[in-house]
Amino acid sequence: MHTSHTAKLDSQRLNEQYMQRAIALAKRGEFTTSPNPVVGCVLVKNGDVVGEGWHQKAGEGHAEVNALQQAGEQAKGATAYVTLEPCSHFGRTPPCAKGLIAAGIKHVVIGMVDPNPLVSGRGIKMLEEAGITTEVAVLESAANMLNPGFIKRMKTGKPFVRCKMAASLDGKTAMANGESKWITGSDARQDVQRYRAKSCAIISGADTVMIDDAKLNVRYNELGFIANDLKEDDIRQPVRVIIDSQNRLTPSLALFNQQSPVILVRTTVENEHQWPHFVKQIQVNERLGKADLTDLITKLAELGLNTLWLESGARLAGAFIRQNLVDELILYQAPKLMGENTRGLFDIEQLTSLKDAISLDIKDIRMIGADIKITATVNKQI
Amino acid sequence: MHTSHTAKLDSQRLNEQYMQRAIALAKRGEFTTSPNPVVGCVLVKNGDVVGEGWHQKAGEGHAEVNALQQAGEQAKGATAYVTLEPCSHFGRTPPCAKGLIAAGIKHVVIGMVDPNPLVSGRGIKMLEEAGITTEVAVLESAANMLNPGFIKRMKTGKPFVRCKMAASLDGKTAMANGESKWITGSDARQDVQRYRAKSCAIISGADTVMIDDAKLNVRYNELGFIANDLKEDDIRQPVRVIIDSQNRLTPSLALFNQQSPVILVRTTVENEHQWPHFVKQIQVNERLGKADLTDLITKLAELGLNTLWLESGARLAGAFIRQNLVDELILYQAPKLMGENTRGLFDIEQLTSLKDAISLDIKDIRMIGADIKITATVNKQI
Repeated sequence: MHTSHTAKLDSQRLNEQYMQRAIALAKRGEFTTSPNPVVGCVLVKNGDVVGEGWHQKAGEGHAEVNALQQAGEQAKGATAYVTLEPCSHFGRTPPCAKGLIAAGIKHVVIGMVDPNPLVSGRGIKMLEEAGITTEVAVLESAANMLNPGFIKRMKTGKPFVRCKMAASLDGKTAMANGESKWITGSDARQDVQRYRAKSCAIISGADTVMIDDAKLNVRYNELGFIANDLKEDDIRQPVRVIIDSQNRLTPSLALFNQQSPVILVRTTVENEHQWPHFVKQIQVNERLGKADLTDLITKLAELGLNTLWLESGARLAGAFIRQNLVDELILYQAPKLMGENTRGLFDIEQLTSLKDAISLDIKDIRMIGADIKITATVNKQI
Repeated sequence: MHTSHTAKLDSQRLNEQYMQRAIALAKRGEFTTSPNPVVGCVLVKNGDVVGEGWHQKAGEGHAEVNALQQAGEQAKGATAYVTLEPCSHFGRTPPCAKGLIAAGIKHVVIGMVDPNPLVSGRGIKMLEEAGITTEVAVLESAANMLNPGFIKRMKTGKPFVRCKMAASLDGKTAMANGESKWITGSDARQDVQRYRAKSCAIISGADTVMIDDAKLNVRYNELGFIANDLKEDDIRQPVRVIIDSQNRLTPSLALFNQQSPVILVRTTVENEHQWPHFVKQIQVNERLGKADLTDLITKLAELGLNTLWLESGARLAGAFIRQNLVDELILYQAPKLMGENTRGLFDIEQLTSLKDAISLDIKDIRMIGADIKITATVNKQI
């Protein structure tokens, strides 16, 4: 009696199972696809998986192309499960929708539509006009979570900003004399390395770079186990964006020993120093005597940077939060108490009453080694 | 071939199953047995539970007596599972070991031996001399966790001290002007009420009492669901211990509106005020111009107080921690950032270098409403 209902449930279960697999494949690209999104694709024919693929690197084959290549002739008549709507335009590679059509795919199941308002829905239209049936929004929220930065940049023209801080359990980041190495343990530091490696850019202030003589790079041997066995050469160094409104940085700092892109953020022209070839200077608006952070991140999005990893001191972190620019806060808390003769986490201007406190939503708490890791979103302040 | 091994495993499994039940029964007394430990007892005969009991209130029947009463004649030949070694001495009630012997119990399974070095093992000896076989240390660590305060007091002459603090995620307890209501949510506040109700005493400083005009009592309607359906009259108000070395408290404070025991801690005699009948004053040694906290908690243990719930400001909490007197830290973190123009969690003297930071072990992290609850132990400082 309930056959059609049961068949529908079975089909939904299969859709979710294969989409889950496509999502797992997509994640293999998390350290390498920037500025492109991660995408996974599974091809299924008569209940058998005949092809799998994921996008590995910008400029190289998209997930669908890689899966079609694996399937070869067997793609004909298969169903494609893909985490993101197949593209419809010629970029650095031909449109994936065309590839699916040419291979004789008969049905396409899609995690989420393209977030770019200029092209959203066009891939689906192209498939349907070729007689291919489609289903969308299968495990949509999981598909969304694959690419928070790409999606945010496409939809809003701004990058996804993660703010990282590390402190003792009583919220202290350094002793009065500045001593801060190491508050958290090696597991937390490895986690930070992995976030750096996944981000399009690391953003910090001149103070941090000068005081710690920080390189702000990804150290391959501190990344630990990586699922898809990346080699050292596969690791992309994120762009290092340093806010230096007072033009205090000099080329002799350790930051410039690492030969990977640096963007120096200015509010006034700097022409005192000879900078290495991988250093670019950009100018942003001034706001109350400092770099206008909204202008800055908008300009970074225009450069194709999807995700920013903010790793700075209390003042810059406080300013990002105060100006509603932080999407996610990652706070590592070490099992220590440091007392009052110390430095705090966030310097937040004009916060004098409890009702003005910055409101967060805790999304995740977990142990990471002996430390606590808290993931929170920042509620927009009025 | 493996019959005897299998039989042994089966017997262990049954032991643990019935002990688990005895532990669950013991917990029913957690709000009421002070200063006695919580104890649970299950009587099993031919695979059937024939009696269950738990200690409900000091001066009333012990767990074994209550279980024997339920079992009646069926106790003869039964096995008793009891979380704590049966007592061997006449206190306010006759010795439980005698009761088990008189009822014809043939075997006794014990969670943990009596922690009091003066009587430890005597109950077991009394049972064995009467021909009853015994087994000890079944689910011993769980049996231990039932009574951290009682066990610590018996073994060391000091109470178990829990230090409670509540702060924003950046470790702030109040704005610069003192505004602190409410940082955490109602679920966390209910949790605090339940800890208060379970504790023998709440300990705080004169500052907290005067500034907040705090009653430091248990509010029945804020306790929420209690497993054993206690009525308002069943709730014992913990002793309120207030450190007032400078004799600043006056009888007009709200603290004294609640007619339940108060201990005022002095370093010098106070005889200016007429105090209500439920107020007792004790004198403790002075240490660097303040009440000697080790002397204080030792004196409180002598008064039969097993568990202290420290609910105070940053200075007193910092002093307890600095002097290695905190066994467990309970920290509630609200999903808020309060910035730097605020008050911190712990004022800890002589902490100037990171290597001197107080080291903790995180035992548990969980969400409680929208807040985070962290349970940690404090590692002894050198």
